[in-house]
Amino acid sequence: MEFTHFNDFGRAKMVSVEDKENTKRLAVARGNIKVSRDIIEKITNKSMKKGDVLSVAQIAGIMGAKKTSDIIPMCHNIFLTGADLQFIVDEKNSLIIAESTVKTTGKTGVEMEALTAVSIALLTIYDMCKAVDKGMILSEIKLIHKSGGKSGEYNLV
Amino acid sequence: MEFTHFNDFGRAKMVSVEDKENTKRLAVARGNIKVSRDIIEKITNKSMKKGDVLSVAQIAGIMGAKKTSDIIPMCHNIFLTGADLQFIVDEKNSLIIAESTVKTTGKTGVEMEALTAVSIALLTIYDMCKAVDKGMILSEIKLIHKSGGKSGEYNLV
Amino acid sequence: MEFTHFNDFGRAKMVSVEDKENTKRLAVARGNIKVSRDIIEKITNKSMKKGDVLSVAQIAGIMGAKKTSDIIPMCHNIFLTGADLQFIVDEKNSLIIAESTVKTTGKTGVEMEALTAVSIALLTIYDMCKAVDKGMILSEIKLIHKSGGKSGEYNLV
Amino acid sequence: MEFTHFNDFGRAKMVSVEDKENTKRLAVARGNIKVSRDIIEKITNKSMKKGDVLSVAQIAGIMGAKKTSDIIPMCHNIFLTGADLQFIVDEKNSLIIAESTVKTTGKTGVEMEALTAVSIALLTIYDMCKAVDKGMILSEIKLIHKSGGKSGEYNLV
Amino acid sequence: MEFTHFNDFGRAKMVSVEDKENTKRLAVARGNIKVSRDIIEKITNKSMKKGDVLSVAQIAGIMGAKKTSDIIPMCHNIFLTGADLQFIVDEKNSLIIAESTVKTTGKTGVEMEALTAVSIALLTIYDMCKAVDKGMILSEIKLIHKSGGKSGEYNLV
Amino acid sequence: MEFTHFNDFGRAKMVSVEDKENTKRLAVARGNIKVSRDIIEKITNKSMKKGDVLSVAQIAGIMGAKKTSDIIPMCHNIFLTGADLQFIVDEKNSLIIAESTVKTTGKTGVEMEALTAVSIALLTIYDMCKAVDKGMILSEIKLIHKSGGKSGEYNLV
Repeated sequence: MEFTHFNDFGRAKMVSVEDKENTKRLAVARGNIKVSRDIIEKITNKSMKKGDVLSVAQIAGIMGAKKTSDIIPMCHNIFLTGADLQFIVDEKNSLIIAESTVKTTGKTGVEMEALTAVSIALLTIYDMCKAVDKGMILSEIKLIHKSGGKSGEYNLV
Repeated sequence: MEFTHFNDFGRAKMVSVEDKENTKRLAVARGNIKVSRDIIEKITNKSMKKGDVLSVAQIAGIMGAKKTSDIIPMCHNIFLTGADLQFIVDEKNSLIIAESTVKTTGKTGVEMEALTAVSIALLTIYDMCKAVDKGMILSEIKLIHKSGGKSGEYNLV
Repeated sequence: MEFTHFNDFGRAKMVSVEDKENTKRLAVARGNIKVSRDIIEKITNKSMKKGDVLSVAQIAGIMGAKKTSDIIPMCHNIFLTGADLQFIVDEKNSLIIAESTVKTTGKTGVEMEALTAVSIALLTIYDMCKAVDKGMILSEIKLIHKSGGKSGEYNLV
Repeated sequence: MEFTHFNDFGRAKMVSVEDKENTKRLAVARGNIKVSRDIIEKITNKSMKKGDVLSVAQIAGIMGAKKTSDIIPMCHNIFLTGADLQFIVDEKNSLIIAESTVKTTGKTGVEMEALTAVSIALLTIYDMCKAVDKGMILSEIKLIHKSGGKSGEYNLV
Repeated sequence: MEFTHFNDFGRAKMVSVEDKENTKRLAVARGNIKVSRDIIEKITNKSMKKGDVLSVAQIAGIMGAKKTSDIIPMCHNIFLTGADLQFIVDEKNSLIIAESTVKTTGKTGVEMEALTAVSIALLTIYDMCKAVDKGMILSEIKLIHKSGGKSGEYNLV
Repeated sequence: MEFTHFNDFGRAKMVSVEDKENTKRLAVARGNIKVSRDIIEKITNKSMKKGDVLSVAQIAGIMGAKKTSDIIPMCHNIFLTGADLQFIVDEKNSLIIAESTVKTTGKTGVEMEALTAVSIALLTIYDMCKAVDKGMILSEIKLIHKSGGKSGEYNLV
C-alpha cells in the first residue's frame, strides 16, 4: 500500500472520492487519560458544587467530531449522521477511558472524526483538572472498529 | 487544590484571569504515535514522490495551537507569540515523537495550546498514513515543561 | 415525548439520523428587536452617509445559518440549499422584525438554522446601533413554520 | 449620537479603537425562553437518565462568547478574561432565565459577547428540548449592566 | 442575465438550489504571484534549512477550499470530493503560478472553492516570503475551467 | 534577508515575537477585479431591486481580516483595533478597485490582514456577479503602505 494523500509532485492533496458510493459508515475509537487518585475521586464523587468534568468533555468531543475537517488538513468535510461518547472510570488504574462512536452516510469514512472526538474529550479532561495536577497523560488513542465503504470492516486485534 | 473551572452552581465557567499580570509564558508538550515498520520507512525515505507527512503534521499542529480556545470549551482565547513543533523518528521502537513549544505574553498559560498542537500533529500523521495501516496508536501525550505566571515553573519528573 | 439528545448515561449526544430519508425541508423563524424612536428613524431614513444597518444584519444572519452546527453543540452539520431573511420595520411599535427562511435537502430539519439566523441578525442590529442606545431588547424569537421530514408540518398557532 | 459603524461611503466598518485605553470591562446580559410545563419539569427533575439540558446550554453560551467576533460582522476580536452563565428556572411562569457575565481587559467593551452568550445558551435549550415541543419562545434578551471604558457605567433602568 | 444573489428587497441571499440535481462538478482556477529574483531562487533551491514555502501554500490552499462557505458570505456550504493544487515556477518572469482543481458531487458548482484555494495559496506564499521582500503582487486569479451542472462547461478563452 | 518562517529542521513555524514591543501598526493593501461592462453598469446603477454587491464585499472583507490567522497557516492570531475598506469603480477600464486599511496595537504587523481583506472582498464580488459572467479576473493585489514596528515604514514605489 502507498500513501494516498500525495499528488505527483509529492505534495499533500485531498484524495478524490467522487467515484465512491454513498454508504453507511461507522467508526469507534478509544483512548485514556491517566490522572491522579485525587482527580479520580473528585470526578466520581461529583456534586453540584464540584461540577461534572465528563459532561464538558462529552460536549467538547462531539463538537470536535464536527470540526475534524477544519483541524486535520486533508480530511474531507462531511455530514455526520450521529456522534456519541462514553466514559469509563477505571479507578484501579486511575484511568478515564473515552470511547467515541461516529456515523456518516457518505463517500468516505469517519475514522478521523472518531479519533478526533476522543482526543479532544481527553484534552478537555486535562484542561478541567489541570489546576489540581498537571502530570496527566493521554495514551492508547486508537481506532477500535470501522465499517462501511469499499475497504470493509476493520477491527483492532 | 480544587477544580477552578466550575461556578457555584457546579457548572463550567471560563475562569476569571482579569487580576493576573501579563507575563511571558511558555509550555512544552510531547507525545508519540506508534506506527508500523513500513510507515517508518516510508516517512524517513521521503522523496518528492512520496511527500512529506511530517510537514503536513507540523502545519496542522501549529494551526491547531491557534484553534485551541475554539476546541477546548473553557480555554481562554489568547494571542500566541510563537509556536513550533519538532519530530523525532525513533526507528528502533517504530515511534514518531512530536514535541511542541508554544509561547504567549499574557494572563494565562499555554499548556492546552501545547498539548493540542501535539495531539493534532499526531492525528494528522494518522490521517496521512491510514491508507497503509489503521493500527497506529497515539500515546504519552503530556506536558513536559511550563514557565511563567504565578504558579511558577513546572517540569515533568 | 422524551428528550432525544441524551444517551443512556444522561450525557448529550448528536442524535443518529442515519435511517432518516433525504427529503426537502424548510423552516421559517421570526423575532424582533425593540429600538428607540431615534434608531427607527435613522434606519428607515438610510442614506449613503448613514449606511444600511439591515444589510449588515442580513449578511450576518445568512452566514450565521451556515455556522449553526458550530454554535449549537448537538446540531448536525448540514448542507443548506438556501437561506434568506427579510425585515419589517414596525414604526408604530418601534420594532424591527426579522424573518428567516432556510432550506435543506437532507436527513434532518433546519429549525435551528432558521432560529440562529434570526437571532444573529437581531444581535447584529443591536451591535450596529448600540452607540446610539443600549436599551434595545430582542424578543419573540420563535419557529413559525417547518415542513418536510417524518414529523411533518409544524405551524405556530 | 450617530451610528459609528459606518465609513464616509455609508458602508460598515470595524470602528477604530486604537486610541482607547486598556481598561477592565464587564458586561451582564439576560434573556429567557418560555417553555411548556412539561419541559420545565423534565429540566428541573433532571436525572442521569434524562441529562442536564442547562449544562449543555452553559457550555454553548461560553463557547459562543468566544465566537462573537466571528458571528457579529463589525465586532472586534478580543481576549476575554472570564465568562460565566447562570440559569434561573421560573416555574410559575414556565420560563428559563439565562444571565451571562463576561469580562475583558482591553480597548472595547463586551456587551455583544454577553448578549451572544445568552442568545446561544437559549437557542441551545431550544435545540435540546425541541423533540418535546417546538413552541418555545426566546424573549427579553437585553443588556443589564456594563462597566469600564470611557462611556462609563450602564445599568438597565 | 441578472444577479441571482439578491432577494426582492435588494438584499443578499443564499440562492435556492433545492431543485438542482446532484451531479459531479469540477472547477479549475489559476493565479500567480510576482516575486523578486532572490525569492525565486530561495524557493527553487529549497533545502531542509530553508524549508518548503510551496508545501505550506499547498496545505493552506486546500484547507482554504474547505473554508470557502465560511469566507464568502453567500456561498453554499458543500461537501468537497477532492481538492488539489500545483505550482509552476516561471523563473524567466519571476512568477509562481498556482493552479487548483476542486471537485464535488452536489447541487452547486465549486468555482468559488477553486478561486479561494488559489488566492489563499498565493497569500500564504506572500506571508512566508515577506521578510525578504514586501513588493510581491498577486495577479491573474481567474477561473480556467468548470464542468458539471445545468449551465454546462465553461472554459476561459 | 532570509525566510524567517522556518525552524532549524526546515519546517514552518510561527515566528517568535515575544520580545517585540506593543506598538501601533497599520497596513494598507489594494487590488482590483476586471469585470464586464455589463457588470460595471449593474453595480453602479444599483437599486433596491438589484442590491448592493459592494456592501456584501465590504462585510466579507472586514470579516476576512479577522479570520486571517485561521486562513494563513503561520500568521499570528492578533487583536485588530480597526478595519475598513473602500471601493473605486474605474468605469473606463472596467475595474473595481478595493483598498483596505487595517490597524492593530501589538507585536506584529497587519500586512496579511490587509491583503486578506482585499482578496476576500474581490472574491466576494466574483461570487455575487458570476451568474452574469465568469470571466472576471483578480489582479494587482499588493501591499501599499505599512507603518509601525521595528522594520519601520514601507511604501510601495
